[in-house]
Amino acid sequence: MLRSHNCGELRKSDVGQAVQLCGWVDSYRDHGGVVFIDLRDRYGKTQVVFRPEEGSEVHVEGRQLRSEDVIQVMGEVVPRTDKDINPKMVTGEIDIRVQELKVFSKSKTPPFEPRTQDLPNEELRLKYRFVDLRREELQKAMFLRHKLTKLARDYFDEQGFLDIETPILGRSTPEGARDYLVPSRVHEGAFYALPQSPQLFKQILMVSGYDRYVQIAKCFRDEDLRADRQPEFTQIDVEMSFVEQDDVLSMIEGLLALWTKEVRGTELQLPLPRLTYADAMERFGTDKPDLRFDMELIEISDLVTDCEFGVFKNVVGSGGRVRGLNVKGVGDRYSRRVLDNDMKGLVGEYGAKGLAYFKVVGGKLESSIAKFFNDEQQQAIIERMQGEDGDLLLYVADQPSVTSAALAALRNHLGRDLELYNPEDMAIAWVLEFPLVTWNEDENRWNAEHHMFCNPFEEDTEYFESDPGKIRARSYDLVCNGYEGASGSIRIHDTKIQQQVFDLLAISPEEAEERFGFLLEALRYGAPPHGGVALGLDRWVMLFAMYDNIRDVIAFPKTQKASDLLSGAPAEVDPKQLRDLNIKLDVKK
Amino acid sequence: MLRSHNCGELRKSDVGQAVQLCGWVDSYRDHGGVVFIDLRDRYGKTQVVFRPEEGSEVHVEGRQLRSEDVIQVMGEVVPRTDKDINPKMVTGEIDIRVQELKVFSKSKTPPFEPRTQDLPNEELRLKYRFVDLRREELQKAMFLRHKLTKLARDYFDEQGFLDIETPILGRSTPEGARDYLVPSRVHEGAFYALPQSPQLFKQILMVSGYDRYVQIAKCFRDEDLRADRQPEFTQIDVEMSFVEQDDVLSMIEGLLALWTKEVRGTELQLPLPRLTYADAMERFGTDKPDLRFDMELIEISDLVTDCEFGVFKNVVGSGGRVRGLNVKGVGDRYSRRVLDNDMKGLVGEYGAKGLAYFKVVGGKLESSIAKFFNDEQQQAIIERMQGEDGDLLLYVADQPSVTSAALAALRNHLGRDLELYNPEDMAIAWVLEFPLVTWNEDENRWNAEHHMFCNPFEEDTEYFESDPGKIRARSYDLVCNGYEGASGSIRIHDTKIQQQVFDLLAISPEEAEERFGFLLEALRYGAPPHGGVALGLDRWVMLFAMYDNIRDVIAFPKTQKASDLLSGAPAEVDPKQLRDLNIKLDVKK
Repeated sequence: MLRSHNCGELRKSDVGQAVQLCGWVDSYRDHGGVVFIDLRDRYGKTQVVFRPEEGSEVHVEGRQLRSEDVIQVMGEVVPRTDKDINPKMVTGEIDIRVQELKVFSKSKTPPFEPRTQDLPNEELRLKYRFVDLRREELQKAMFLRHKLTKLARDYFDEQGFLDIETPILGRSTPEGARDYLVPSRVHEGAFYALPQSPQLFKQILMVSGYDRYVQIAKCFRDEDLRADRQPEFTQIDVEMSFVEQDDVLSMIEGLLALWTKEVRGTELQLPLPRLTYADAMERFGTDKPDLRFDMELIEISDLVTDCEFGVFKNVVGSGGRVRGLNVKGVGDRYSRRVLDNDMKGLVGEYGAKGLAYFKVVGGKLESSIAKFFNDEQQQAIIERMQGEDGDLLLYVADQPSVTSAALAALRNHLGRDLELYNPEDMAIAWVLEFPLVTWNEDENRWNAEHHMFCNPFEEDTEYFESDPGKIRARSYDLVCNGYEGASGSIRIHDTKIQQQVFDLLAISPEEAEERFGFLLEALRYGAPPHGGVALGLDRWVMLFAMYDNIRDVIAFPKTQKASDLLSGAPAEVDPKQLRDLNIKLDVKK
Repeated sequence: MLRSHNCGELRKSDVGQAVQLCGWVDSYRDHGGVVFIDLRDRYGKTQVVFRPEEGSEVHVEGRQLRSEDVIQVMGEVVPRTDKDINPKMVTGEIDIRVQELKVFSKSKTPPFEPRTQDLPNEELRLKYRFVDLRREELQKAMFLRHKLTKLARDYFDEQGFLDIETPILGRSTPEGARDYLVPSRVHEGAFYALPQSPQLFKQILMVSGYDRYVQIAKCFRDEDLRADRQPEFTQIDVEMSFVEQDDVLSMIEGLLALWTKEVRGTELQLPLPRLTYADAMERFGTDKPDLRFDMELIEISDLVTDCEFGVFKNVVGSGGRVRGLNVKGVGDRYSRRVLDNDMKGLVGEYGAKGLAYFKVVGGKLESSIAKFFNDEQQQAIIERMQGEDGDLLLYVADQPSVTSAALAALRNHLGRDLELYNPEDMAIAWVLEFPLVTWNEDENRWNAEHHMFCNPFEEDTEYFESDPGKIRARSYDLVCNGYEGASGSIRIHDTKIQQQVFDLLAISPEEAEERFGFLLEALRYGAPPHGGVALGLDRWVMLFAMYDNIRDVIAFPKTQKASDLLSGAPAEVDPKQLRDLNIKLDVKK
């Protein structure tokens, strides 16, 4: 090695040693001819000092150093005087008196300093990712990512899981998201697809008897990206044979407990809370509730059927619902402008046509519409809402799905705005029993809620004909702080049930055979009951890091336009490459 | 869990227990109405017995079971009588007397039985990979792969390496092999490329100060495949900062020693043997020598300049070489037909126009051409070859590169054919100091021997102008049993030297900027000296498994035509998908 020590390990006990350090010039100060440099590497910083008395050559060279130059220094570990000791640095009790210097490379002036507090815009950071990655925040994220990954691998290894790689060059089985395609050179007109998940292959591994499979797998979805999505993302992909739902859930809970203990030093209370999809939708309006705070949705439809407020009355009359939130103790906090503009605007994004609100004052409702509710109605509402003087009551009256979505968003907004939780809390829970299918209004057909390999509850199979929306699947999501952190299910291992599901989804036997034939064929040759789950690694790193930008936990992320600003991907290619691949451009201009 | 025990864990001490087992029907025997089934899972086999006296229902069901059905049995662990004990099975002292049976799924008759010794052709095995993967040989490979992977991850973690993911959707920087391309939907006319290796990104991580990086990375090369290549393959990718060559070599040697100890139970002698590229080519004719046996190449050019055998004389006269092998003690083994047809044919594949041979008999050469060598010449040849009576001497006279390639192939063939080594041996060594560049006759230009980021030896830089072929790179390959198991180098961290290399390779500054601009830019902002290596994981699994087919150590491999016979990838896709991606087919029919 070109160094005897790294920049984080020298202590007072090393005083007198001749050492060799390598690293980056983090900061440079010249105090009356004595040059002080904080030399930085991944392990820490050490102050190295160039004194004129060490000889003019090394001193002159030392004075020419600038930020981000990469150097090697040879010198002696010397103690600092008491007044110079820096208790904030673990190496703060010593200096290196430099006797020799080697400059490995000079740096151009970087577009921003890695130690800046004044971050430039994200585009510049992504373009100069090699500078950005030197920042402590990103280094911490990479260390944490390594740690969570390593813990997961160790955990699953100890539990008897086999780490098995599945192909990246696979077959297009479009479902939900768009596939990324890869033209084949050898097979003219044919394409590979990058996997949206290893789903089919991991099920085949169960059919092949591997019993417990794990893979930290790259997955790909060619979607228009939301802020917390990436075109390629990493999931911890798990599948188990001869299991029931509780076996999978407790296996994953063990991992979360390990992560929590090793990263946060706290014990995760197990088993994790579990709520059904129906419960989650009813109480929080979403299947990804943020459980760091209460403030559940409360229905008052039955209390307002006879009120004189037309909006409520009509909505209830036409099959809609009136649901609301009791925002405790903030009756005076929000101005009419905030309520009528900002909050109404927010619920409007989810299709709600309005936001009704009251303040509880002296045991009565107060607001511009309070007059439409008689005393008895007001008492009933206050009682139902567990209202107390000073509370703010907010309502959305609309179609059931709109009230859910709008109030869920409003609840999240208020939780954040009113600091109803400690941002360092992690509230993790399972949401169970998702519907097997949901009705797609646009296409006039049933869609799989999770995917088409989820096993329905046996006792619900009677609804296949009569009321498919009522069939619950043996599926489960892990939610944390309003994010979906994992998703899984017990799979179908019986080809007859699989056929029933395909029929329901209006997938013909021919189409099924074309798209999933190899899995269906495998199921015919001895399939065990099996189930699994996939955890979003990027997201869990983000949650444990307590960051709110997924790109800060990925070494080389892509923008929301799926570009890598560092390498400039995607880019035009040589026309010869396209000819080799038997394709040509079809650009609409 | 649906089982209380797996199929590999019950012992005599469990007799009397009520247990629940799940698995596949491995074999079925009916002895006078008593049904014996070997129930199989990943962990082993246990014999389960259906007796008529347990009640007719379960017995009748038991009799209907067939190979590969998946079942659950409940019953009691009973001891076998002494004469029925099977000492070859760890569970061979007990049976399960079945009281209840549940059939999870019936299997169609599989195209071949997982326990068959009579393997069908590989195409059928790949198509029915879910059956093939049940075979013990493939299960062993998957277990071994898991183990080697886990050991590597643990080793690098302990050594302070960070596991960092680099992108799969990257930028096309064609070099050597063809890139797999991925059309971008969002950016019309632009393409991602799948990485041939994470080379540029791992160098950037060094520039960013990550110091020690490791990743078990999928890499992609769109090449016409040789038998031991796959279009997607896995490498253990390593990079270190502030290191010299020996630091990288000994780090990797530590991993190999760990693997050897944990898999084979033996100590690997360290440091590993090291030979230069020049030495390897001279002594073995290849940079991938099989060092399990000696039989080095020996040159006799200087001894035959005046002989009367025209072929030798002319070749030497025109700058060629005469080199040969002494195949000890097999002077009588090969017939003239084998020598003149088979072996001559083999060297012919490498461009050799002929194969000359002699037998050493009574201290003289014997063969149809022996008469062209006088006594003195014969003695000199025998002495140089360390010939003894009964030896077979084989020669190729040709251009130097042809003699190397032809004799290397012949040497490998003879080593195998004559069983000159124990096939369980692993002979691992480093080959060092590859040439930086080699001359490309076809294109009339210099090509990078490894890749264009390898650091040249400082003392060889004088040859940049005068004799570039003499410049040695700080590059190194790890070879094992004739395979390249790893490849790496100390990289260029100085943009001036990088420019010199680009100039030599006739890559213009504009082209360099277009292809590798982001790495070159990174090098300008403070790059540490760094180097690394990539190990071919698939190949090491194959070597440690002592298999000779790389597809047997990959769960879902592709054929030499880059097809996945299981899923049918690549395949045609919906025209709408192509329109979305702004491409169309350009099939030449």
